Amino acid sequence: MIATGVVVEYNPFHNGHLYHIKQSKKHTDADVMIAVMSGHFLQRGEPAFIDKWTRTKIALANGADLVIELPYSYATAQASDFAKGGVLLLEALQCDFLSFGSEQGEITPFLDTYKLLEDHNHELQQNVKQLVQSGLSYPQALNTAYQRLIPNNQLTYADLTKPNNILGYHYVEAVQKYHTNVKPITIQRVQAGYHDAIQNGTTIASATGIRQAIQEHHSLQNVSSFLPKATFHALTEWYDEHHHFASWELFWPFLRFSILRLSPKEIASYAEVTEGIEFLIIQAAKECPDFNGFMQKVKSKRYTWTRIQRMLTHIFTNFTWQQLKSSDLPNYIRLLGMTQNGQQYLSERKKLFTLPVISRAASSNDPMLLQDIHATDLYMLALGKNKIGMDYKIPPIRI
Amino acid sequence: MIATGVVVEYNPFHNGHLYHIKQSKKHTDADVMIAVMSGHFLQRGEPAFIDKWTRTKIALANGADLVIELPYSYATAQASDFAKGGVLLLEALQCDFLSFGSEQGEITPFLDTYKLLEDHNHELQQNVKQLVQSGLSYPQALNTAYQRLIPNNQLTYADLTKPNNILGYHYVEAVQKYHTNVKPITIQRVQAGYHDAIQNGTTIASATGIRQAIQEHHSLQNVSSFLPKATFHALTEWYDEHHHFASWELFWPFLRFSILRLSPKEIASYAEVTEGIEFLIIQAAKECPDFNGFMQKVKSKRYTWTRIQRMLTHIFTNFTWQQLKSSDLPNYIRLLGMTQNGQQYLSERKKLFTLPVISRAASSNDPMLLQDIHATDLYMLALGKNKIGMDYKIPPIRI
Repeated sequence: MIATGVVVEYNPFHNGHLYHIKQSKKHTDADVMIAVMSGHFLQRGEPAFIDKWTRTKIALANGADLVIELPYSYATAQASDFAKGGVLLLEALQCDFLSFGSEQGEITPFLDTYKLLEDHNHELQQNVKQLVQSGLSYPQALNTAYQRLIPNNQLTYADLTKPNNILGYHYVEAVQKYHTNVKPITIQRVQAGYHDAIQNGTTIASATGIRQAIQEHHSLQNVSSFLPKATFHALTEWYDEHHHFASWELFWPFLRFSILRLSPKEIASYAEVTEGIEFLIIQAAKECPDFNGFMQKVKSKRYTWTRIQRMLTHIFTNFTWQQLKSSDLPNYIRLLGMTQNGQQYLSERKKLFTLPVISRAASSNDPMLLQDIHATDLYMLALGKNKIGMDYKIPPIRI
Repeated sequence: MIATGVVVEYNPFHNGHLYHIKQSKKHTDADVMIAVMSGHFLQRGEPAFIDKWTRTKIALANGADLVIELPYSYATAQASDFAKGGVLLLEALQCDFLSFGSEQGEITPFLDTYKLLEDHNHELQQNVKQLVQSGLSYPQALNTAYQRLIPNNQLTYADLTKPNNILGYHYVEAVQKYHTNVKPITIQRVQAGYHDAIQNGTTIASATGIRQAIQEHHSLQNVSSFLPKATFHALTEWYDEHHHFASWELFWPFLRFSILRLSPKEIASYAEVTEGIEFLIIQAAKECPDFNGFMQKVKSKRYTWTRIQRMLTHIFTNFTWQQLKSSDLPNYIRLLGMTQNGQQYLSERKKLFTLPVISRAASSNDPMLLQDIHATDLYMLALGKNKIGMDYKIPPIRI
């Protein structure tokens, strides 16, 4: 069986994701599609729009055969660690291919870019350091330093100003750095940019645009054309039950209370909180009754919106620098769901996997798994649900 | 000017408090009545029913001339430290008398009891230790050990099974232990026991009974006969504005979130949390969507309801063992409000005070004051109010 993996958030799963999964399957002639998916907190430092089990069901209904949880410490990390977690899990799962979406659409520029940056790594790091000191954000500095390295008119290098290309670059980097057997391929993204708003008359929109449209109109009607049926039905059911979707706006009373309960020294102990920003975070939380106002006060040239949201995620879930530093390689494969085809793959290949498969949360005390379980509890509480220990109660979804 | 002090919570101020203030004034021929009052968290480990400024206004309208805040570390402590804070502040304020209400009604038994217990302190401590080890709660053990010391048929010793007598005993203890010039006197409490429910046809009920009646009936009508007009009007206004009164039931979502966000090790670092009860607290918080259910699971023979609530108060406000241990003597007199008469007393006596008077919170960085300000912020947030830094904004109330 040929196995092809994707590393995803599916927040929520839309027609672009469906296109990517279909194309990936076709290009790699895959017998089984494996999705390594983030849990309740995402790479942009946000709570997931809907819970991970609902997102698993939708993914299984749309072409994924196995859904594996990307542990919190990778799922909420900067791109390089996010990619590292995803790639190492796909490697442990004996995947043949890793397929990612990119603006670039071809794999060669990524491989060339990786070689260029590896060969000039020292020079690059020096330049990045200097540019950060001169006031650029880290992503801005990295991109500027990178541009300086590219030989004139060499268009075959990847355009690392594009969000999906950046992530793609880090997949390629992780594949090479950890000497995996997974072969990276890329599928060109169609139509919508990563952050673009939805456009009528089209069928593909970004997840960000879809979420925004739902939140603005308090309705799913405007977005139905961008979603597979399974997503539309699951979102409709969710909204009927919960009357809102998860967001920092919704979670703000709990996040704000948590921030204001803590001392500046404690805030500084959370992962990604650096350079005295704890004082600004506390001051802004004092002043702002809404999340957006808070973010406007805290963001700056130095810190991207995403970086600040990641700090907030770690404050919210009580995840410290110490915990981040003690996270290194994944130790297990957490199964969230499977199709019959996925189950057959597991039966055939499980003995070759280099990490144990965890189907029951209670069977492990791995700190990474405990952090995911903890994050689920806080996510549910902030959602206003009296649902604690769901990770122990919900077995892998089967369809 | 003769100054008489009382140490109070006024949660809320009722006819029994009015009676006590009037009798105290009369018995001591006082020119000025000084109330040292708890802030937003109380000795039984609960949030105050209404905020401290509203309680200050009511007290000033009913015979108190000065209202001084009893800092958090005393206000939420066991009886001996509660009394210590109150007595030392009254001493610093040059009070001539401290008047407390008691079931006993005469001061001599308290003085005799103090002498008895001082003289047999070693024996008492040994017995208490043994009784606690045999499974009694600390208050039960203390009382049993004390009973064993009393010579047969000596009825002039204070009955330390009564809650107000216990507190009274600790006032007398603090007065003696710190060699203060404050003279303790006591006024017999009338009609209602400390925890009794309200009874129709009477005018005095316990604060506990009054709060329960209000919460049960979602109305103030049943309790109007037990309250001075100023209290009734203030409670009516409060209810119209907030639609609820502060309580752990109301604060439970925030308290529960705070508990479940923390690790067992962190929970154990909070003041008064001992002997592994952190695991029980976390387990009960996981299981219980309401505060009462939570308390039923956590309380035991070993830990009184009050003791557990004090742990919860410290978890809620982020007050650790370390902070508790570094709290010793009060360093300032925080003025919450005054009448013209109170102001005159301040003008005349301020230079004799042994501690500085703080009228503006911003003028001090004393850790005890900062903890009160912090507790106010969290109280307001849990109440659903966007009111942060009220301690900096509200000047002393003047009537």
